[in-house]
Amino acid sequence: MADYRELWKSLDMDLEKHDKLCEVLPEFYEDVYLSQKNRPEGMNYYNFVISEVHGLRIKELDDHKQNGGKVLGTFCVFVPDEIIFSADAIGVGLCGGSDFWVPDGEKVLPRNICPLIKASVGAKISGTCPYFQSADMLVGETTCDGKKKAWEILNDYTPIHVMDLPQMKRENDKKHWKDEIKLFMDKVEELTGNKITEERLNNAIKLINRKRRVLQRLYNTRKADKLPISGKDALLITQIAFYDDLERFIQKTEELCDELERRIEKGVGVFPENTPRILVTGTPMAIPNWKIHHLIETSGGSVVCEETCTGTRYFENTVKENNKTLDEQIDALTDRYLNINCACFTPNEGRIDDIIRLYKEYNADGVIYNTLSFCHTYSVEYKKVKEALDKEGIPVMMIESDYSLQDSGQIKTRLEAFFEMLKERKSAYAK
Amino acid sequence: MADYRELWKSLDMDLEKHDKLCEVLPEFYEDVYLSQKNRPEGMNYYNFVISEVHGLRIKELDDHKQNGGKVLGTFCVFVPDEIIFSADAIGVGLCGGSDFWVPDGEKVLPRNICPLIKASVGAKISGTCPYFQSADMLVGETTCDGKKKAWEILNDYTPIHVMDLPQMKRENDKKHWKDEIKLFMDKVEELTGNKITEERLNNAIKLINRKRRVLQRLYNTRKADKLPISGKDALLITQIAFYDDLERFIQKTEELCDELERRIEKGVGVFPENTPRILVTGTPMAIPNWKIHHLIETSGGSVVCEETCTGTRYFENTVKENNKTLDEQIDALTDRYLNINCACFTPNEGRIDDIIRLYKEYNADGVIYNTLSFCHTYSVEYKKVKEALDKEGIPVMMIESDYSLQDSGQIKTRLEAFFEMLKERKSAYAK
Repeated sequence: MADYRELWKSLDMDLEKHDKLCEVLPEFYEDVYLSQKNRPEGMNYYNFVISEVHGLRIKELDDHKQNGGKVLGTFCVFVPDEIIFSADAIGVGLCGGSDFWVPDGEKVLPRNICPLIKASVGAKISGTCPYFQSADMLVGETTCDGKKKAWEILNDYTPIHVMDLPQMKRENDKKHWKDEIKLFMDKVEELTGNKITEERLNNAIKLINRKRRVLQRLYNTRKADKLPISGKDALLITQIAFYDDLERFIQKTEELCDELERRIEKGVGVFPENTPRILVTGTPMAIPNWKIHHLIETSGGSVVCEETCTGTRYFENTVKENNKTLDEQIDALTDRYLNINCACFTPNEGRIDDIIRLYKEYNADGVIYNTLSFCHTYSVEYKKVKEALDKEGIPVMMIESDYSLQDSGQIKTRLEAFFEMLKERKSAYAK
Repeated sequence: MADYRELWKSLDMDLEKHDKLCEVLPEFYEDVYLSQKNRPEGMNYYNFVISEVHGLRIKELDDHKQNGGKVLGTFCVFVPDEIIFSADAIGVGLCGGSDFWVPDGEKVLPRNICPLIKASVGAKISGTCPYFQSADMLVGETTCDGKKKAWEILNDYTPIHVMDLPQMKRENDKKHWKDEIKLFMDKVEELTGNKITEERLNNAIKLINRKRRVLQRLYNTRKADKLPISGKDALLITQIAFYDDLERFIQKTEELCDELERRIEKGVGVFPENTPRILVTGTPMAIPNWKIHHLIETSGGSVVCEETCTGTRYFENTVKENNKTLDEQIDALTDRYLNINCACFTPNEGRIDDIIRLYKEYNADGVIYNTLSFCHTYSVEYKKVKEALDKEGIPVMMIESDYSLQDSGQIKTRLEAFFEMLKERKSAYAK
């Protein structure tokens, strides 16, 4: 990676600290990912992306900027990428998923807020994340208290535009969200100097829908009896979707899906038979946060689906295409994005319906409700979800955890007991 | 208080558990309040209110209901009481301030959310708060993640109407908040069967402005060199303002202010000379949460002002009176309420200006930044406030605490050191 040192330097990075980060990742990735048996060939592309995570993609962003393009950093699936790409800008997801950044985040934030926020802010203020360093503007939103207030701190480092997401989903709120999308459009046009035309927005809608469809195709392969791909690998792919080059990502993921579908035909799976199938629901898992998936899949379980922002919430609904006017396009965006069932809404019954539906669609045996520590919205919402799942006879286990590995042993013990119970339950039904 | 048992029973209260709550309060009140020296005579009224906290006022609410009136329970200074009272309903603040309710709250909520929310929900589900039991409808708002999601749980017990407070203060947000006030008006009209007319709303605006003005008058007496009233007593009065009969409260508080102004003329104070004067800023202190004020005033300090929701944010701005149309009245309400500087907004620079202004107006020596445990908005906002106060040379200390008394010793030690520093600083300036 030595080739990129000049580039990193030009991005005003802390090279010494960054070296330390670079030392940790490869071994960690090897332990979590490369140790898996019978991985699909197509995962080589994502291995490559990770090996170049601070290299090739940063170079591409830099080339784009050298050509007068802009880079926008986002933190939430509610921010409409279509607006960004239609102004010839590039959007990259910036949520921090590494424990490495937490101590720097804690220099400016209270310790008792969620690790994702601490890591995101820490990534910026430590000067060790080249994506943050490449961003001309950040885009925040009002999805939770911690993030909402952290924007004020990030704004000291990079200009940030905040979108006020309504907290409910009534007719008025739709209008309100439409207004926010328009304000965002104005801001992006101002930043890039590019006019967002009907044609450009139409193309961006189609392009990003293609990304959603390939992820849908990928997730569909996980409905198979014999899982052709591990949950960990699927999670990695979704995480990479947040910042990779769109066309390349779509192409490589289509190729992977070809392979996975062949595997299904041939009955090739990556887990032993009778491995409990788990639907994970809850808070996002930002790269490289693979903790819960890794624990599940090394404790006798397999993850078949994620009802999270780094899962189905990211790609489940597409934006209506072929709209006639810009206003219709914005309506289509408003509808699609306000359809996401995040715990930041009150009430949020739609998420319960989603969990039950996905549990059935993916033929899951149990649900793991995962929340990052101190995430109020998801942790309070657990009660309603639990009640609904109990009513449906769906087993569920709650795990609240941060990025440190200190509680791994304890979580593993709980997971093993949960999986044992799921297996007994399954064999009891089978009789 | 035996007279009220039938009334409590009719409110479906848990009498046995309620007895336990009633056993605790008098001794606690005596320790915190009645032990103070040289209290104003006028405080006898508030002593009486507390002695009848679950009695007389509940009887008044019951009489109101027997006459066909409605009672609405609120949790936030953003909910416009004017709307409630103009429909001949009574609004009562329901925020829970007692540790007694926390264990019941933790039955349905995560432990790591703020004690105010846990106590409020616990007060309801334990059936030991007659105010909750008297409420025909609750009014929630989207000011923080914990409360926003707790409404969904409370809704299982009492119908709740939620107002979506915008998280920013741009022109669009004003429109949005105006729409919310109108929706709330519709809801209150529907519940009460009473039409909110221009005249009624005008009267309610004037009445509630009178309450605000008497609280302003009370707080003005705290600007005097010799404090005529303790911070604890002033806090109690503001807390009582949230649920007492308006006319009686105003009259009794005017009487108290007469006495306090006489004290100022005569130079009568309740604290020794050179007692450090403290501005408390941060999260609300719901009755009977007197913890921080009590600790401050038994550790060598005095509280001269509260920049909190149970302080200046509750009464500082009045609503413009004598509007010509209902629409103008709603505009006036929109403006007044959206002017409150709560940490739920991003950005929230206005609060910093308020703190600095109040520090000067009340001739304070230092600031105590108090947040309830796990309150993300106020705890993250501390950084910006601290930076601004440092710049102004204003000493500030942060205390994060819940309702338990376990950390009292530790807080006392910190307070004593802080007050020593303030005294030294003052005498150094005096030289």
